[in-house]
Amino acid sequence: MKITLIGSGNVATHLAIAFHQHGHTLLEVAGRSEKSVKKLAGKYNSTPVLNIRDLNKKSDVYIIAVPDHDIPLLARQLPLSNQLVVHTSGTVPLRAFPKKLTNTGIFYPLQTFTAGKRVNYANIPVCIEARLKASERKLSTLAGSISERVVHLDSAKRAWLHLSAVLVNNFSNHLFTLAEELLQKKNIPFDLLRPLINETAAKVMVSSPKEIQTGPAKRGDTTTLQQHLKMLEKDALLQAIYLVLSNSIEEHHGPRL
Amino acid sequence: MKITLIGSGNVATHLAIAFHQHGHTLLEVAGRSEKSVKKLAGKYNSTPVLNIRDLNKKSDVYIIAVPDHDIPLLARQLPLSNQLVVHTSGTVPLRAFPKKLTNTGIFYPLQTFTAGKRVNYANIPVCIEARLKASERKLSTLAGSISERVVHLDSAKRAWLHLSAVLVNNFSNHLFTLAEELLQKKNIPFDLLRPLINETAAKVMVSSPKEIQTGPAKRGDTTTLQQHLKMLEKDALLQAIYLVLSNSIEEHHGPRL
Repeated sequence: MKITLIGSGNVATHLAIAFHQHGHTLLEVAGRSEKSVKKLAGKYNSTPVLNIRDLNKKSDVYIIAVPDHDIPLLARQLPLSNQLVVHTSGTVPLRAFPKKLTNTGIFYPLQTFTAGKRVNYANIPVCIEARLKASERKLSTLAGSISERVVHLDSAKRAWLHLSAVLVNNFSNHLFTLAEELLQKKNIPFDLLRPLINETAAKVMVSSPKEIQTGPAKRGDTTTLQQHLKMLEKDALLQAIYLVLSNSIEEHHGPRL
Repeated sequence: MKITLIGSGNVATHLAIAFHQHGHTLLEVAGRSEKSVKKLAGKYNSTPVLNIRDLNKKSDVYIIAVPDHDIPLLARQLPLSNQLVVHTSGTVPLRAFPKKLTNTGIFYPLQTFTAGKRVNYANIPVCIEARLKASERKLSTLAGSISERVVHLDSAKRAWLHLSAVLVNNFSNHLFTLAEELLQKKNIPFDLLRPLINETAAKVMVSSPKEIQTGPAKRGDTTTLQQHLKMLEKDALLQAIYLVLSNSIEEHHGPRL
């Protein structure tokens, strides 16, 4: 397919790589950041577009990969009408597109992208949604060309999936950060925790997380819980995190037998 | 070395496998649960001991692998005095051993063990501590025979490491559980999140978690934060978890630029 990418950040860059690998043509890369737009366009022989009003009209799909809060205004400025325009956000609903765009959709890859780190798209779910049936089929074909997991989700379900992704990715990573800080203060290398983090993820690849929960809160081990809360008494916020998560574990796993 | 294992649960079972693989002799397996003691002892040609008073006196090390709260009482019942006795707990301090045992220590493998799932011990840190220098060397040799990562930690540092392990393992896994429940209610397969969980762990294998934090709280994206809190308004506990973790992320990553 002929694709126009609007945006030149992490998501746009990773999409460009995947589309290029699977034989699609990146017709244009548009954005406000001259340097990164030209760099990304240059890599794939596509035209850099710095003024959005100069966009071509003949791409099969226009993919907006910019921060969530920029999507509505940017969409309103597009010199397009019945062309297929999609965004890549987990949170912005389909109805956020302006009415003058009659053929809109979502192309949401459920992954955390880091600059400079390659991602294997084959396993990444791509969630799609479109106003028109024909466009949904087109997005399904496009998503299916880069990923084995194409999922049709409406905007409400996509919002729940995104919220869940915040829990498992952003919040877990923050717990890792809190652990790293605690250990740094005590001169204990964070690297000691890496095998445990790895195993925690490996276990949930093949199990339901509820079934493999362990730890003091699960066991109802109040001695350890009290000891930990005491150790954290100089850090009210971390103590609150410890308490509310332990309470939730106890709620989910019932009282000790 | 000649080893006596006291306990026949997950930790004891995984240690038995590792010791056997690396040429040690499991002299005895002791415990109250006749069935599991006999099963474990049978696998490694060791003597099952159901009454702790019948323990031999000639093992090089006696390893107590029972629930934390059972350790002090059990240690008091051992028919031993100057033999090397260690436990495998992250939280119980060295001083919890009774005084009549003069040669005590800790052998704490930092991992989450699941029945039926093999574990590669080579990468698992084993934290050791001993009252006597000679015993510390002995434990270091034993730990070094099954793991590449032997760490000398005193009881206070071990407690901090254990607390950090609760954050990265128990709490992360509970976040996975909360996400699974949310998605179940909306008929969205949890399996969609597995590649993201995997990638989250993979990233922190090579990076400091603080440097790779992403998400609405990190970005200061209050629109998404408010939307998520509203979505969770019927679940006060989960809403509290969301709020306190988002606040902590904001504290750690500063205000939006």
